[in-house]
Amino acid sequence: MHTINTFTLSIMRRLGKVLGMEHTWDRLVAKIRELNDINSAYALLEWDQASFMPPKGSEARVTAMGTMARLAHERLTDPELGDLIAQLSEDGSLDQIKAATVRVLKRERDKATKVPAKLVTELKEAERRGYQAWVEARPSSDFSLFRPFLETTVRLKKQEADALGWETERYDACLDHFEPDMTARELEVLFRGLTDGLQPLAATILDAAGDKPAFLKETYESKKQIDFCNALVDRLGFDRAGGRLDFSPHPFTIHVGHGDVRQTLKVDEGDLMMSIYAVIHETGHALYDQGFPEELAGLPIADAPSMGMHESQSRLYENHVGRSRAFSDHLVPGLKDLFEIQLGGVDPDEFYRGVNHPERSLIRVQADEVTYNLHIALRFELELALFRDELDVADLPDAWDAGMEKHLGIRPQNHSEGVLQDMHWSEGYFGYFPTYSLGTLYAAAFHEKMVADTGGVDDDLRRGDASRVLAWLRDNVHSKGYLFTAKELAAGILGEELTPEPFLNHIRSKYSEIYSLSI
Amino acid sequence: MHTINTFTLSIMRRLGKVLGMEHTWDRLVAKIRELNDINSAYALLEWDQASFMPPKGSEARVTAMGTMARLAHERLTDPELGDLIAQLSEDGSLDQIKAATVRVLKRERDKATKVPAKLVTELKEAERRGYQAWVEARPSSDFSLFRPFLETTVRLKKQEADALGWETERYDACLDHFEPDMTARELEVLFRGLTDGLQPLAATILDAAGDKPAFLKETYESKKQIDFCNALVDRLGFDRAGGRLDFSPHPFTIHVGHGDVRQTLKVDEGDLMMSIYAVIHETGHALYDQGFPEELAGLPIADAPSMGMHESQSRLYENHVGRSRAFSDHLVPGLKDLFEIQLGGVDPDEFYRGVNHPERSLIRVQADEVTYNLHIALRFELELALFRDELDVADLPDAWDAGMEKHLGIRPQNHSEGVLQDMHWSEGYFGYFPTYSLGTLYAAAFHEKMVADTGGVDDDLRRGDASRVLAWLRDNVHSKGYLFTAKELAAGILGEELTPEPFLNHIRSKYSEIYSLSI
Repeated sequence: MHTINTFTLSIMRRLGKVLGMEHTWDRLVAKIRELNDINSAYALLEWDQASFMPPKGSEARVTAMGTMARLAHERLTDPELGDLIAQLSEDGSLDQIKAATVRVLKRERDKATKVPAKLVTELKEAERRGYQAWVEARPSSDFSLFRPFLETTVRLKKQEADALGWETERYDACLDHFEPDMTARELEVLFRGLTDGLQPLAATILDAAGDKPAFLKETYESKKQIDFCNALVDRLGFDRAGGRLDFSPHPFTIHVGHGDVRQTLKVDEGDLMMSIYAVIHETGHALYDQGFPEELAGLPIADAPSMGMHESQSRLYENHVGRSRAFSDHLVPGLKDLFEIQLGGVDPDEFYRGVNHPERSLIRVQADEVTYNLHIALRFELELALFRDELDVADLPDAWDAGMEKHLGIRPQNHSEGVLQDMHWSEGYFGYFPTYSLGTLYAAAFHEKMVADTGGVDDDLRRGDASRVLAWLRDNVHSKGYLFTAKELAAGILGEELTPEPFLNHIRSKYSEIYSLSI
Repeated sequence: MHTINTFTLSIMRRLGKVLGMEHTWDRLVAKIRELNDINSAYALLEWDQASFMPPKGSEARVTAMGTMARLAHERLTDPELGDLIAQLSEDGSLDQIKAATVRVLKRERDKATKVPAKLVTELKEAERRGYQAWVEARPSSDFSLFRPFLETTVRLKKQEADALGWETERYDACLDHFEPDMTARELEVLFRGLTDGLQPLAATILDAAGDKPAFLKETYESKKQIDFCNALVDRLGFDRAGGRLDFSPHPFTIHVGHGDVRQTLKVDEGDLMMSIYAVIHETGHALYDQGFPEELAGLPIADAPSMGMHESQSRLYENHVGRSRAFSDHLVPGLKDLFEIQLGGVDPDEFYRGVNHPERSLIRVQADEVTYNLHIALRFELELALFRDELDVADLPDAWDAGMEKHLGIRPQNHSEGVLQDMHWSEGYFGYFPTYSLGTLYAAAFHEKMVADTGGVDDDLRRGDASRVLAWLRDNVHSKGYLFTAKELAAGILGEELTPEPFLNHIRSKYSEIYSLSI
């Protein structure tokens, strides 16, 4: 009897616990759904603000978005949510999806509760003023107009980092916003390998490149560009039943809700290649967001594990699909049909060289595949120096110019083409830039693995068929959502740690062929 | 000393009270702004759902909208808001804007708190199921598929009316959702006057009308229709910097937020006049929403006082501007330029007769200016009978057919062109239909007054210039927002109570001229 009693009690306890936890999980899901709905409303308000909103609606829009952000923050910091997370965090019997959901939500909630409300308000205000000051300072190239605001923002971001906590160094807390689980030290190693390998390569390639091909400087009618980009996006597998392509001053992709992924296009009549490669880039992001599996819908793990991982998908499409010889050969006939006057005399060789033409330029957003990551390396080094208290904001312009000299061998003539060119810092985005390079490195490594797994996709791409690329990414990346950290996900795919080698090999191989170089 | 003390105390008390009330008002405004932001997010989600949302996003959209509606309801029923309203309601020193805001908000809050949560949930579910059943029943004309659901909805709507409370009869509580301060008895008087006057008029006019002019049956290219409608909307004064015109399966207008009013267009290649007059109708709504004064922005009184009043603006534009001889003369040359083949042989007389062509039709949404209000009178009588317990849902189809015979002299051949034609009842919209006729009567009365005040606007309209119409409406209607009830607002403008006479005179005068009738 005693034994049976104990056994029965034990079963009942376990059953009670399981039932209790089921109930706890359901309550958590209800809270997640509400948070998700608020975030979805925010996303639509933001998408509309950038695409369709009439100008007079902007003031009311800013307050509506502010209220949605506040409601989401209230929900996230709700003590009841904290209790549910705490209970479920202790439950070792959760399945993979539930465990990952609790982990990701706990991470988000901890971040949201650690920073004092007063500091949050001060930072928001500083970022708002900083952005305004940057908007005014840039056209006149006058860093002194921006400096006091940036000083305030950097000071407050350091306080925020300290409030959030860090182990090795303060900048790790900045990275954590965008690239969870990544440290400054790890990034330093990656960037050192990247720049050590890339600088000599770039120097040789840039010397061989010569002048920009003439067809890149022609004018291309908007209407035809739009038609071409729309067909291209469809060909790459973007699902229109679960998404849209519209227009905005800066291209972006946004996940409005399950089954609703929107990307935007900016068409520049003077830069056909910018339009085409920007839309291929955004399609990479959009396909990722469309690829999270049904069973994660509405959960916080229906997301990329990091900005760098998200960027890996856009970079893979932009550079390894879009700028490949095979796909550029595919693009030529369609473009020639549309733009006979401008492209009639351009052969596939010339076109391929053109879309991969590198140059020593001052502006990051116009940079090519060879030099882009040197622009990022500079920004990473400066951010690190700022957050290690090795550099004052006042000395940033000189450090910028010296860094450009070191990395690219050119100096800006004024600050608007130098330290004032990007808006990121004005809005407090420290730790964001390095994710662009991480994305590049992940993309190259994934592409190398994809080629090994599939035996290569060039024959497909030459026919404009990217379906095996998408299938491989769906299997290996998209379907995993945020079940793992970016590092875990990458290690699972690659079987080894990320290094700059696949990217350096890719550049070496592409440009040795284009310019017949021994590099 | 005593006097001075008392005086000082009195001043301090008053000052304290004023300061206290100022503080109370500020707290109320903070709550209003939050509610307004949530409603604005809801409006954008709704607009996007009808216009741009990709189909796979629909499930997530429904839940996001549900969450926004719940958040708004939570905010409205928040006891703290109740306290603030109670305090301010007792303050006789509030200015007109503050007093009206408190009054309108109190009204909304009282309604939101009176209905038990259980009944709210049951009703929502019944309406959802009712709508589904109606969608299925209509194509097969099978009322029995819809009947049990409609019975449930009517039963619950009666319970809701009792929970909300009424003085004279239950239907007044239905009206109160859409036309505050209006009673069934008052409406009965108006509708009796309307139908008594209109039925004989309509009979004579319809007999004289003859066949539909051939040009109304032609096909008109979408693209050209869209261009024409866009230009028309601009000409009528719609402000694009504070609004948009997009497309949706059913045209509608929505006030997303201050400075952001959106209307939609549905183009039918087989019905040019439907496209044109629908867009003029929606422009009437949109101009109203764009005309609320700056100082009401974000307050609940930046709104029409009733659905009937809102409809007065759309009807005034559609019928008294759009279908006037002067404006139809203005439309002809532009339309002929676009549609030479279809309209080349149509002269201004024929065009004017065409856009005013009346017929005995079974479908309300296709009805003309002469017969439209007879369709509404039928619905009003049936709703009244249902809510006075004089008619069972089971007997609704027979009552419908008999009513059509009485009002229009025709009988539906099946229920899909009869009692199943409108979706309103399926979603519990009882008390909504009569506001369409109220709008028509207000429109005619306002138009009569506008002509008296301005000396007539026909010369303007013949040139396509509707600016004096808009100026008169801005002055007399739009600028008042919801500072007064609809009846108060109309009485202030007209100097007398609303009657059907101006509308009857308008029909009499228009059609006696068109068909040379003595009516």
